[in-house]
Amino acid sequence: MRVLVPFDCQTPKTRLAPVLDDDGRHAFARAMFDDVLSTVREAGHDPTVLATGPLECSAPVTVDERPLTAAVNDALASASRPVTVVVADLALLTPDAVTRLTDCRGDVVVSPGLGGGTNALVVRHPEFRVDYHGVSYRDHCERARAVGAEVTTVDSFRLSVDVDEPSDLVEVLLHADGAASDWLREAGFTLVEREGRTVAAQSADLE
Amino acid sequence: MRVLVPFDCQTPKTRLAPVLDDDGRHAFARAMFDDVLSTVREAGHDPTVLATGPLECSAPVTVDERPLTAAVNDALASASRPVTVVVADLALLTPDAVTRLTDCRGDVVVSPGLGGGTNALVVRHPEFRVDYHGVSYRDHCERARAVGAEVTTVDSFRLSVDVDEPSDLVEVLLHADGAASDWLREAGFTLVEREGRTVAAQSADLE
Repeated sequence: MRVLVPFDCQTPKTRLAPVLDDDGRHAFARAMFDDVLSTVREAGHDPTVLATGPLECSAPVTVDERPLTAAVNDALASASRPVTVVVADLALLTPDAVTRLTDCRGDVVVSPGLGGGTNALVVRHPEFRVDYHGVSYRDHCERARAVGAEVTTVDSFRLSVDVDEPSDLVEVLLHADGAASDWLREAGFTLVEREGRTVAAQSADLE
Repeated sequence: MRVLVPFDCQTPKTRLAPVLDDDGRHAFARAMFDDVLSTVREAGHDPTVLATGPLECSAPVTVDERPLTAAVNDALASASRPVTVVVADLALLTPDAVTRLTDCRGDVVVSPGLGGGTNALVVRHPEFRVDYHGVSYRDHCERARAVGAEVTTVDSFRLSVDVDEPSDLVEVLLHADGAASDWLREAGFTLVEREGRTVAAQSADLE
């Protein structure tokens, strides 16, 4: 199946600014993106990339400088269906989770992200279009029903964790084993206990 | 299968203090607990409760005032196996998610919670004991391997969201449909956008 992976080359992962500088955010975002591409391929699919700028990577790249929603909708309009769309920051993704997504029946399969986002979609209905603004999980379910599509969801922890916030790094250190978790460990991040919670902190912060 | 649901009657959900007062936290915790009991029953299992104090509810209750780890380990030592342990704040739990958990093969099935916790376990090995302190997901996997048990995990978003923090209320409003989400809505909580994120806020805060 064709799997579209959108990637923001310019300003990735701004909400990680409290713990990673600009170079770090670019490198970490790139590691997660590379992990997603390999995992999609391991699951037997062909990833294609929708990037906001020119990019060297292991999959075909379409450059579209517009915001995510417009770019994805253009791809949906022109692609042969089904189209699967997977965000580039799913550091916990496994081939099994990809297969559960793509095997899920339904005209539109919506995979919720933490905080109301949409981390993955399988689009089999010709009229469905995305809108990633706001509570996109709810909106995508409503939009799908509005065009008469049968909506299903996938219950996957690995698909639900998109890595946006410093607190998400805990999940990467615990549950991922690709380039992104290697990068974090090499950057000195480890799990520590603070005020009864587990956080990911850099060794320098611990001294 | 016997499903043990531990419940803290005294000081539930202290991390929700920024958004719910003491009475609110008790009522909301109770609603989630009641949802978990009904969902376990809908999945065809018999819930039994391990409570820190006397409690009226729809399932048999054992009172054990000790901390969670000691109380669960006592129950594991005396129970006929398999024993499933499910925490009481899984407001997103569905019968399907319970079935995926209990159907999962392995001497010890560990279901990760956000932030490194353990939200559910299926224990089929006689020597396995819990330790809920710290990064319990990782520790439970290690402890299981240490007694020679085969460890498996369940990839479920619904099992991964234990409702501890104000940010978790977003998931309840979006994905739950039991007493807990009803309670939140009746208390005036709705989804609103703040600084590019979706949060659960009470109508009074919006004025």
